[in-house]
Amino acid sequence: MRILISNDDGIHAVGLIELVKALHGLGEIWVVAPDREQSAVGHSITLSEPIRLYPAKVEFADYAFAISGTPADCVKLAITELMPERPDIVISGINRGENTGISVIYSGTVSAATEGTINGIPSLAVSLDSFTSTDYLYAGKVARRFAEVAFTNGLPDGTLLNINVPALPPEQIKGVKVARQGRARFQETFIERDDPRGRRYYWMDGDKVAHAETDTDGAALKQGYISVTPIRLDLTHHAFIDEMKLWPFQLEELAAG
Amino acid sequence: MRILISNDDGIHAVGLIELVKALHGLGEIWVVAPDREQSAVGHSITLSEPIRLYPAKVEFADYAFAISGTPADCVKLAITELMPERPDIVISGINRGENTGISVIYSGTVSAATEGTINGIPSLAVSLDSFTSTDYLYAGKVARRFAEVAFTNGLPDGTLLNINVPALPPEQIKGVKVARQGRARFQETFIERDDPRGRRYYWMDGDKVAHAETDTDGAALKQGYISVTPIRLDLTHHAFIDEMKLWPFQLEELAAG
Repeated sequence: MRILISNDDGIHAVGLIELVKALHGLGEIWVVAPDREQSAVGHSITLSEPIRLYPAKVEFADYAFAISGTPADCVKLAITELMPERPDIVISGINRGENTGISVIYSGTVSAATEGTINGIPSLAVSLDSFTSTDYLYAGKVARRFAEVAFTNGLPDGTLLNINVPALPPEQIKGVKVARQGRARFQETFIERDDPRGRRYYWMDGDKVAHAETDTDGAALKQGYISVTPIRLDLTHHAFIDEMKLWPFQLEELAAG
Repeated sequence: MRILISNDDGIHAVGLIELVKALHGLGEIWVVAPDREQSAVGHSITLSEPIRLYPAKVEFADYAFAISGTPADCVKLAITELMPERPDIVISGINRGENTGISVIYSGTVSAATEGTINGIPSLAVSLDSFTSTDYLYAGKVARRFAEVAFTNGLPDGTLLNINVPALPPEQIKGVKVARQGRARFQETFIERDDPRGRRYYWMDGDKVAHAETDTDGAALKQGYISVTPIRLDLTHHAFIDEMKLWPFQLEELAAG
């Protein structure tokens, strides 16, 4: 198996290093990851400036490169330019902090897996529900198990798996829950201050607002389950299309006026 | 009606200026837009650095601010900090160039509308299918008509409208087609060169690969229709959840090893 690893915490992140270690022996491992943290970059790509490539060293990786770009850039560059053959699977992570609910939309971790999916490669995003833990041992094993199962069973066209692992001792983890993406969102606040030169700035802060839902990724995680959500590239609200077809647009008026 | 306008081409873009002009008289207009181009930023938000706010002047806007951030930052800051009352509608655009198929995922234009939707506000993303035209007159009228119709009819929870207008004389436009998001993707290439100091760089380029589909946003646009696609925040592949529940994860082995 040829495995491409990326993340959004940067190539030096413990979660990435532990992921590579956990996958050791499963196949040829390529690491192409940002040279620095790229959290909350959404599905950004770098068009307006050049991208730099730095050979790197990651224990147990067969090939490793840091790049001056986003997670999506990493996967594009790896597949298009760096790897002589396409990867069989793309794994993004292990992210420091969960990616459930609305975070899926902001997540650089998910975006690397999205880019793999766009390229027709089975892809996983893996996150650990802690900003402080450095124990990625169990989450690494989970990532490896999901890689094996997804590789064996295949994924539907245009679909990736978003996996979140509780930061609990393994014996307290209740199992796997296949769950839908929840609607938990952030309530932003902006810290408003003056800089040393007296100029005003804003700095975004925010807390995730829990949503009263019990069958979601976030709820499963909070209950002690590993949550896994199949995520689609097709964002169409198909059921609403027929209703919209009845809307009165009356365009003929516009050309005249 | 209280209208919030943003975009990803920046506050000085012709498409934004023409959008504001087209909406004149419809309500109170707030413009909060990036101080420079932010194309292909996906749904990025700025967490790792402060955001600067610059009072600006846009003809026919009641209030206008440029900020040193992304389109999603603009909508967050506007709703949370700048506007005394929430907007009734968010309109992002008019973008220079179409946003159909996979571009929806990379689009900063769509991300501003996504942020409005996350905040429970009916939101539209509007794009003109041309990188060279400066004639946004008809597209502006279309944006205004969709704003009126969406405001009157309402949108389903967690759903925005992605609207693409052909760059054709109005009399050649065939009407509105409500279409699903197509699967047209980019085939990336990277230009590989040395900089003036002999250091290698990569620069992303790419062409959209047409997909043999006829009922999509991209196909409708190419046929001379205004395409409109309802886009959902929920990315779950609901139909695949039941199948995945049968997958053999055999977690019990992991805790031991």
